[in-house]
Amino acid sequence: MSDQIDTRTSWLSPELLAQARASVPMVYVDAIPVRVDSHGRVTKVGLLLRVAADGSISRMLVSGRVLYGERVRDALIRHLEKDLGPLALPRIPANPAPFTIAEYFPDPDVSGFTDPRHHAVSLVYVVPVDGECQPTQEALDLAWFSPKEAASPKIAADMTGGQDRLLRLALGHVGELP
Amino acid sequence: MSDQIDTRTSWLSPELLAQARASVPMVYVDAIPVRVDSHGRVTKVGLLLRVAADGSISRMLVSGRVLYGERVRDALIRHLEKDLGPLALPRIPANPAPFTIAEYFPDPDVSGFTDPRHHAVSLVYVVPVDGECQPTQEALDLAWFSPKEAASPKIAADMTGGQDRLLRLALGHVGELP
Amino acid sequence: MSDQIDTRTSWLSPELLAQARASVPMVYVDAIPVRVDSHGRVTKVGLLLRVAADGSISRMLVSGRVLYGERVRDALIRHLEKDLGPLALPRIPANPAPFTIAEYFPDPDVSGFTDPRHHAVSLVYVVPVDGECQPTQEALDLAWFSPKEAASPKIAADMTGGQDRLLRLALGHVGELP
Amino acid sequence: MSDQIDTRTSWLSPELLAQARASVPMVYVDAIPVRVDSHGRVTKVGLLLRVAADGSISRMLVSGRVLYGERVRDALIRHLEKDLGPLALPRIPANPAPFTIAEYFPDPDVSGFTDPRHHAVSLVYVVPVDGECQPTQEALDLAWFSPKEAASPKIAADMTGGQDRLLRLALGHVGELP
Repeated sequence: MSDQIDTRTSWLSPELLAQARASVPMVYVDAIPVRVDSHGRVTKVGLLLRVAADGSISRMLVSGRVLYGERVRDALIRHLEKDLGPLALPRIPANPAPFTIAEYFPDPDVSGFTDPRHHAVSLVYVVPVDGECQPTQEALDLAWFSPKEAASPKIAADMTGGQDRLLRLALGHVGELP
Repeated sequence: MSDQIDTRTSWLSPELLAQARASVPMVYVDAIPVRVDSHGRVTKVGLLLRVAADGSISRMLVSGRVLYGERVRDALIRHLEKDLGPLALPRIPANPAPFTIAEYFPDPDVSGFTDPRHHAVSLVYVVPVDGECQPTQEALDLAWFSPKEAASPKIAADMTGGQDRLLRLALGHVGELP
Repeated sequence: MSDQIDTRTSWLSPELLAQARASVPMVYVDAIPVRVDSHGRVTKVGLLLRVAADGSISRMLVSGRVLYGERVRDALIRHLEKDLGPLALPRIPANPAPFTIAEYFPDPDVSGFTDPRHHAVSLVYVVPVDGECQPTQEALDLAWFSPKEAASPKIAADMTGGQDRLLRLALGHVGELP
Repeated sequence: MSDQIDTRTSWLSPELLAQARASVPMVYVDAIPVRVDSHGRVTKVGLLLRVAADGSISRMLVSGRVLYGERVRDALIRHLEKDLGPLALPRIPANPAPFTIAEYFPDPDVSGFTDPRHHAVSLVYVVPVDGECQPTQEALDLAWFSPKEAASPKIAADMTGGQDRLLRLALGHVGELP
């Protein structure tokens, strides 16, 4: 959930971004990277280890902002490659609709999804990745878990902002929630 | 697609809104109001007649911005009641995911969905309405069409910004595309 | 999951049904009846108490066979009215696609969904009900639970055939899985 | 929509299959094979040329029966490989839910989807294929069309049983209906 790569573009100064953040909801994408077998069944779920927006070291989904002028598909690819490396070969679903949405608010009581920085409406996708993944940029690690492990309280305890719940929604969507 | 009701709130001055619009994608909702029979089958589709963002008088979907701090469900209800009146009794689907997304850009060549004012990512829902509908505020009229009429070139010719295509996607989603 | 009402029709003798059951997968529907608030958010989930196919007294979803010549929507309405009474006013979704499928097998190791009688492919829907519900026919009771209760291990222990998992998938689908 | 490969199994004699067909709805799968670009956008749709159930030479989707004891994913793979060859590399979606259902009846007035042989409830999927495709068995040809061509009246005229409509629903689902 970093904006480092975004401010690299000349499209938006930190001041303008801060102002927009206090004025309107941000458009985000969340992606749950998965490994699938030859029949499309999810066998592993990938989680990043990184510094979350709230400062904790957490297991996290791939997540980031959609830029002005950017297609949602392009934002998904950009954030997946930023976090999993250029060889991850993500397979964005043909259907453009997210399987669910996550509404992030600074206040934890509104939706259960929190982000201290802003109100964001995130389009959430399960994305099979075929290639070699290596955590890049700010991610400290990338680990793969079975659906059962991913849905466990142990993993939930390492996640923040409600992303553990989002992970379970994703497991439900692919029929692999225990 | 009016912001009149939005700027009525003290949350955002026209200047700040204009600035945000030029900086980040806006979060929007589009709703296709429908009449359903007792088995959930869509029998009629409601289209507004109003002045579109491009100045033309067009048949339009219910569409509008999600405000800072506002839940998507609340924005849907607000825009449906704004356009169809307080007695429309919209039935927002239990599933929070939109059936598709529409990415509006000033440039017609990017996605086919256009809005001269900004880049908006719209969450699109089919919403059965049970109650009495009467066009309010800026809408000149509200008319109900059979799925077959709604998918016809005649209706498409009266729509703008790609909303005729969005309407056909909605008809496909409910299995009523001819 | 009774066929009593089905064999009432003259369409199929018990012998022919038994033979078909041993030859081809049966088409089933499962429905999770819910109460929703004015914004479409699920507030309660309805569970029947009845004798399951395996002989246990269990909390169960609304479930039953699609008959030869019957539309899926009609089968949904028929089974909902059979189990919840004629005043339940079920609101079948406009989208004909199930939110997930459940593949029931006699062998518990195939999919986790079991039915001792046959291989059935069930189309699963979340169905808001507006009216008064009262358990009919073989149901001993109908009780309403909050999403949090419905997802609890306590309720899961009272369910059989994998329907507790199906219930959690439904809660995930509507964004109310804790 | 051939059962040739199915009766190759010893699971079901033609007599028993005929009897089941007259007694209960059959479980079917339909698959729309597509080519996608690196961002998941559908660029081409594959249509078979073959003898349809009604005897005509038609452009057709991949379609076939789910066998007793067979998982839906396995049936999808089996029919895709039967029709597109063993090197097609189909990518079955991670989400087990079909994007829509098609209810086939002998009577064309029931749902618009027809099959002279039986009542079938078909689970319909859009399936990206990565590998080399060559029509096998009874297919005379396999041709790839742009979404625009696939949605044209010209292609619709070459299809039968309502499959042209199913194809347009698939194009709508992936956001590529013109």
